[in-house]
Amino acid sequence: MTRVLVLNGPNLGTLGHRQPEIYGSKTLDEINEWLGRVADSWGWELSPFQSNHEGGLVDFLEQHGPVCNGVLINPGALTHYGLSLRDALAALTVPVVEVHLSNIHAREEFRRRSVTAEVARGVVTGFGWQSYLLGLEALRGLIGGS
Amino acid sequence: MTRVLVLNGPNLGTLGHRQPEIYGSKTLDEINEWLGRVADSWGWELSPFQSNHEGGLVDFLEQHGPVCNGVLINPGALTHYGLSLRDALAALTVPVVEVHLSNIHAREEFRRRSVTAEVARGVVTGFGWQSYLLGLEALRGLIGGS
Amino acid sequence: MTRVLVLNGPNLGTLGHRQPEIYGSKTLDEINEWLGRVADSWGWELSPFQSNHEGGLVDFLEQHGPVCNGVLINPGALTHYGLSLRDALAALTVPVVEVHLSNIHAREEFRRRSVTAEVARGVVTGFGWQSYLLGLEALRGLIGGS
Amino acid sequence: MTRVLVLNGPNLGTLGHRQPEIYGSKTLDEINEWLGRVADSWGWELSPFQSNHEGGLVDFLEQHGPVCNGVLINPGALTHYGLSLRDALAALTVPVVEVHLSNIHAREEFRRRSVTAEVARGVVTGFGWQSYLLGLEALRGLIGGS
Amino acid sequence: MTRVLVLNGPNLGTLGHRQPEIYGSKTLDEINEWLGRVADSWGWELSPFQSNHEGGLVDFLEQHGPVCNGVLINPGALTHYGLSLRDALAALTVPVVEVHLSNIHAREEFRRRSVTAEVARGVVTGFGWQSYLLGLEALRGLIGGS
Amino acid sequence: MTRVLVLNGPNLGTLGHRQPEIYGSKTLDEINEWLGRVADSWGWELSPFQSNHEGGLVDFLEQHGPVCNGVLINPGALTHYGLSLRDALAALTVPVVEVHLSNIHAREEFRRRSVTAEVARGVVTGFGWQSYLLGLEALRGLIGGS
Amino acid sequence: MTRVLVLNGPNLGTLGHRQPEIYGSKTLDEINEWLGRVADSWGWELSPFQSNHEGGLVDFLEQHGPVCNGVLINPGALTHYGLSLRDALAALTVPVVEVHLSNIHAREEFRRRSVTAEVARGVVTGFGWQSYLLGLEALRGLIGGS
Amino acid sequence: MTRVLVLNGPNLGTLGHRQPEIYGSKTLDEINEWLGRVADSWGWELSPFQSNHEGGLVDFLEQHGPVCNGVLINPGALTHYGLSLRDALAALTVPVVEVHLSNIHAREEFRRRSVTAEVARGVVTGFGWQSYLLGLEALRGLIGGS
Amino acid sequence: MTRVLVLNGPNLGTLGHRQPEIYGSKTLDEINEWLGRVADSWGWELSPFQSNHEGGLVDFLEQHGPVCNGVLINPGALTHYGLSLRDALAALTVPVVEVHLSNIHAREEFRRRSVTAEVARGVVTGFGWQSYLLGLEALRGLIGGS
Amino acid sequence: MTRVLVLNGPNLGTLGHRQPEIYGSKTLDEINEWLGRVADSWGWELSPFQSNHEGGLVDFLEQHGPVCNGVLINPGALTHYGLSLRDALAALTVPVVEVHLSNIHAREEFRRRSVTAEVARGVVTGFGWQSYLLGLEALRGLIGGS
Amino acid sequence: MTRVLVLNGPNLGTLGHRQPEIYGSKTLDEINEWLGRVADSWGWELSPFQSNHEGGLVDFLEQHGPVCNGVLINPGALTHYGLSLRDALAALTVPVVEVHLSNIHAREEFRRRSVTAEVARGVVTGFGWQSYLLGLEALRGLIGGS
Amino acid sequence: MTRVLVLNGPNLGTLGHRQPEIYGSKTLDEINEWLGRVADSWGWELSPFQSNHEGGLVDFLEQHGPVCNGVLINPGALTHYGLSLRDALAALTVPVVEVHLSNIHAREEFRRRSVTAEVARGVVTGFGWQSYLLGLEALRGLIGGS
Repeated sequence: MTRVLVLNGPNLGTLGHRQPEIYGSKTLDEINEWLGRVADSWGWELSPFQSNHEGGLVDFLEQHGPVCNGVLINPGALTHYGLSLRDALAALTVPVVEVHLSNIHAREEFRRRSVTAEVARGVVTGFGWQSYLLGLEALRGLIGGS
Repeated sequence: MTRVLVLNGPNLGTLGHRQPEIYGSKTLDEINEWLGRVADSWGWELSPFQSNHEGGLVDFLEQHGPVCNGVLINPGALTHYGLSLRDALAALTVPVVEVHLSNIHAREEFRRRSVTAEVARGVVTGFGWQSYLLGLEALRGLIGGS
Repeated sequence: MTRVLVLNGPNLGTLGHRQPEIYGSKTLDEINEWLGRVADSWGWELSPFQSNHEGGLVDFLEQHGPVCNGVLINPGALTHYGLSLRDALAALTVPVVEVHLSNIHAREEFRRRSVTAEVARGVVTGFGWQSYLLGLEALRGLIGGS
Repeated sequence: MTRVLVLNGPNLGTLGHRQPEIYGSKTLDEINEWLGRVADSWGWELSPFQSNHEGGLVDFLEQHGPVCNGVLINPGALTHYGLSLRDALAALTVPVVEVHLSNIHAREEFRRRSVTAEVARGVVTGFGWQSYLLGLEALRGLIGGS
Repeated sequence: MTRVLVLNGPNLGTLGHRQPEIYGSKTLDEINEWLGRVADSWGWELSPFQSNHEGGLVDFLEQHGPVCNGVLINPGALTHYGLSLRDALAALTVPVVEVHLSNIHAREEFRRRSVTAEVARGVVTGFGWQSYLLGLEALRGLIGGS
Repeated sequence: MTRVLVLNGPNLGTLGHRQPEIYGSKTLDEINEWLGRVADSWGWELSPFQSNHEGGLVDFLEQHGPVCNGVLINPGALTHYGLSLRDALAALTVPVVEVHLSNIHAREEFRRRSVTAEVARGVVTGFGWQSYLLGLEALRGLIGGS
Repeated sequence: MTRVLVLNGPNLGTLGHRQPEIYGSKTLDEINEWLGRVADSWGWELSPFQSNHEGGLVDFLEQHGPVCNGVLINPGALTHYGLSLRDALAALTVPVVEVHLSNIHAREEFRRRSVTAEVARGVVTGFGWQSYLLGLEALRGLIGGS
Repeated sequence: MTRVLVLNGPNLGTLGHRQPEIYGSKTLDEINEWLGRVADSWGWELSPFQSNHEGGLVDFLEQHGPVCNGVLINPGALTHYGLSLRDALAALTVPVVEVHLSNIHAREEFRRRSVTAEVARGVVTGFGWQSYLLGLEALRGLIGGS
Repeated sequence: MTRVLVLNGPNLGTLGHRQPEIYGSKTLDEINEWLGRVADSWGWELSPFQSNHEGGLVDFLEQHGPVCNGVLINPGALTHYGLSLRDALAALTVPVVEVHLSNIHAREEFRRRSVTAEVARGVVTGFGWQSYLLGLEALRGLIGGS
Repeated sequence: MTRVLVLNGPNLGTLGHRQPEIYGSKTLDEINEWLGRVADSWGWELSPFQSNHEGGLVDFLEQHGPVCNGVLINPGALTHYGLSLRDALAALTVPVVEVHLSNIHAREEFRRRSVTAEVARGVVTGFGWQSYLLGLEALRGLIGGS
Repeated sequence: MTRVLVLNGPNLGTLGHRQPEIYGSKTLDEINEWLGRVADSWGWELSPFQSNHEGGLVDFLEQHGPVCNGVLINPGALTHYGLSLRDALAALTVPVVEVHLSNIHAREEFRRRSVTAEVARGVVTGFGWQSYLLGLEALRGLIGGS
Repeated sequence: MTRVLVLNGPNLGTLGHRQPEIYGSKTLDEINEWLGRVADSWGWELSPFQSNHEGGLVDFLEQHGPVCNGVLINPGALTHYGLSLRDALAALTVPVVEVHLSNIHAREEFRRRSVTAEVARGVVTGFGWQSYLLGLEALRGLIGGS
């Protein structure tokens, strides 16, 4: 069975409440539920995980990375400086897809550089919670599905 | 009826032949055909256009931009310096989605900056020809479909 | 008889329609007409030309540059990267005046550098369509009129 | 009655004498006289002021800024570092037009950045003493005249 | 008796009138009065001085610096380029506290660097006119009071 | 009742012991106690929290941020790269005041940029443990107290 | 039979007339004729092409690139920013030789960087029209001739 | 008895499995065992600790730093941005030796700057797991052994 | 008779008192007296002038520059940003010699760039008050003496 | 008789042995022999010289530069930092041609800047040992031959 | 028999005398003697060489590099700009280990970049003369010993 | 007896012949002779030395530095990159004075940075061969004379 990790970095646990004019009004639970339904229909299993700790994300990848088929990740602000997370992603042999709610190319200068995207297969950015759905579909193209 | 412009910039007319190890083996016609089938199923009409001339893309946007519902664009190398194309995209009131075949975050330094993405709604990068499909779906989320 | 080329670069053909809060509501035809009336009163002849193609502007300068007395140009976004246009202007022996509708010193960082202004005699920037009128008067000071 | 401040920064008191090959042979008095005649014909009153002291210019703007209709200014070398002058100009509610005798885009690198132009409405640069005349006309377009 | 210089740089004489949405509606006189009352209660004497001239501030420091116990200063825009003022402050042996009305870390890029703060003991920034009060208290902590 | 979070970032738990020539000899407990006494006198409640984990600070803000009236924070070294903490602070609707023991403008180059100060209301830096007291008073000015 | 494309970019159609003190007095026709005579003597066929349009050069390479044995190119000012042309050259499997009339290392700063030379086999720069002859000989070394 | 902390940062818990072509095939347990045998022969005690959390490393240093004689540390990716770890190391009075498996001078640009090495006594980089042994010997030179 | 202006910029009026470990213990009056004796012995007349105002120095140069034979100047901190002073010096036709008490190449980074030295004939830096004597001799070499 | 210096800088004495995949398999003696035969056929005399010492190359140029008709030089790595060699070449009045075996535009970033090319007449780069032959021919065009 | 070159660059011949507070009090002869004893015990032969000439080091490497088993080098200040030495080291097929007496990461900014380390296998920096011993051991790990 | 080393770097052996419009027409022998006469009159002994080899200058300083009372040096182009020479100068305990014939602040950008001046006591630049005389006098001020 295809198993995919769905990781969310710092501050994404408050989605729906935090600055909805930028990040939208859907909560992370709602997004995960939605992704789960889509995954179900493909016969995939999703393992969602959120942490405000870079180390927590690395711990999780260390444990689950070797027994999954792909990773969907929104690293939050770690996108721009989380080199430890980057190294953890680079160590995986399965495809990684990075997603962002807002268009990182059109915000503050510091958000334009993604240190994690350099080790991902591809990036989807700017489509709100739909970025996750598109990212999941992208993963299906990379992994192959049922 | 929803009408979407599908623009491709310099060198994308030789897709499938040019450096397939980077850009894949599908031709642009095949991609457009595939996109067309998906669009058909939504009752959408696509207007594909490719040009090696930045001015050609601007001409096209000037003429068709005011009478379309969205733009899907792979600007090719213009991504990194085509400020005239950028201004033409910025002048549109419909949503623009930028796509790239390869992951621009993981190639040469100069490919990491996109001057056009700053005026797009979102970007899909790194999934080969599937970036187009994902981009089209992203547009559907932004425009709403029939 | 004094003959002056009035060149406009990419996206300026849609003046009056494109982002009027930045660029004003006068169309390029209206501006050219107005300039024409002023030129008439001086016994001057204007040759207006607009192209979204950098190459088109260079072609035009190549053909008409040697048989004119001055150039009034709004290079649009080429201002910031059009080195071919710059070289074409630098090759002229008649005075070149550069104009901009908006104040390029007060917008995005990348708009503050003009590669074409380095080879122009002077620049008028920020006064909307009046920049053209002031630029034409500036040319009269440089050329001398009837 | 429309009243306009005509400010000149450091070293501009020696116009006509200082490096005439760059700055021309007209003195500042002659320029002010010429501007005055034009203003007269519009029913405008000009208040010319020159100082080699940045603080002197700020003092003058503080006193006269609230009771004028516009400002025409050549900040001299303060253009490139006079942030106090910039703040004084930014505090005005009337339009500010910046002028330069020489083409600041075509001289030393450090002259290409104008910290004052960022808070002006527009800039005229490169036409010798005619820059002042063009700037005054530009002000008329912004203020509206009798 | 403890004597403290209260210096204000360019444009701060118009406080209350200049851009009140950024700098607040209290005038400098009102602030000085308020500070004076607080100082009185401590048995301190304040010597307020404002100048739009960097040289004026240096003159004042040269004369009064050797006979005071501390300096409270808002250098205005000189904060970012006033190296002469910096040197004058660095020459003092009494503590210097720098204050700013607005949060200089959250405005234009050029306002983030303070050349004067490098030679101050500390900085209070962003609390409107209260920055002065807090700065005065900070000075009391550094000097010790009656 | 007014409730204020008092946050301290990495290495601040060893205050009083770590490099006292830079950071002073007061422990964090002593500072918190002092702040508590002042808060008491205003009828305020303080919730002190220290963590060496950026994620721990974000967790705390996520939980307590929505039910407090203001935040006093010394982010320690996270000041210069903690973008996740920055985003957590930016998501708050209550005022944030940043404090530093030493003058960050007068130390190593990398300490001069504060990524968190960009989303704070103001900053107090350089007055040792008194920076906290001044910061608390600044908060009172922003929140209003009993 | 060996067939070589001889491409010239923007402004090179006016060679001999444009700034002869920099670019020499030979016209492009004269150079092409000379190159043709040399090529003839080797039994080679040359296909000269000049365009002021970057897109025109890309079009030509797209059509003729797959059926030639080598490319000799002077990209003109596109040398410094023509990333679309660069990508078109990079897609070729035959050797590319870049030539310049003037020594690009000894002119303005911006002319020192060649984005096209990065994908060429070698560069000849600074010998006037003889750069072309030397470049053609270089190509013979790379291709092998009759 | 001499006690030395042996710290390993993010992702080093998977040594031997992660990208062995870069980091070698020895696990961290094997390295620690080896180091332990060497330390034993000197009569030293080692306290190994690994964490993917920067905060975890700081916690550990806070607790054990005051009661050890030296620190051997491979900060992993924190090397390049972990300023909190840097401050924790800087606060120690015992010697710190930094080691790296791969040669950080010969990899990606961002790996060339070590913010932690600035506060270490010395660095050993590039010798695979032997870097640890060499680092331990270096510590012996700095501490002196039994 | 040869007349030389001896100019001193901001903070140099306090020489001898200000940071004597950097700037020495001789007062400016003592230096000027010493210079005067040397000048006397050559039959030269010196016109010393000190101001903390950049504008004051420009005023003085404007008035006395045209009737002197050379300028000896220590611009103080204006050395690094005083572009108005630079322009005033550049306008002179007599030789200018710049002197510094301390070695500007060996202090803070910002002191290494001299915007005024670019328009001087030569510079003497680092020899305390003797820099003035050497500078005066240098002027004699450039002017020729009696 | 025409005499040309053929200079080779550091490491070029091991040509043919050093990294032949980059620099080719011809030895320097073989290249010099080949060049000699060509020169002979023109009635030219070549003076080949190789040194690993920048000073050795400067010594040689000092002695032989005044009595030669041209210089062909491959400065090796000195190309990028040998400012003394640059000054020695700049002092010559005969033409200098710089050659490189590999394409310096397509290697490490630091190899793209040539400090010597700025004072040469032209450069041939990227054609292996043929770069020398082409460079010699280029010299013939500049000097004129028998 | 294993033969290792022990190279020392400029100024290292005066070790023990030059700035002992930075570089220690052991002379180079003493260090070489110590290294020799260690090497003897392994049955290795060391060839020590010191030169103040970059060319001298390149000469030595050219002659002895092909007949040795490894290189231990302290390039002195050439570390930061000696690109010729770098190329000579890069041409070797045996392992190179770079050592430094002082910690180059903790001194002046320019000492942090090592152009030679990029082509070495590893680096030992900061342990005084013990850096040599550690480097020699590191070589043994890379070469294998008797 | 006071003994001073007079060092001249690369290309200075050809003074009087090389580019006299920049460097003057006096030969180095003539300068040394002149300096010698002045030194004689003070009872000083000069040891002149010129080398085109950085290593040669370092060798000389190593041998003679410990037995002299001061150094007068014109490092030629080594000024801008000769870090080995810099370290050799930094190791001296006697005063070093750096001189330049031309004004290094007013030439190419790369000549404005002096890596050697950072370790000299002072610099005299721009007065032709008189820079040497002034430098020698400066040394007398630093050393004290007979």
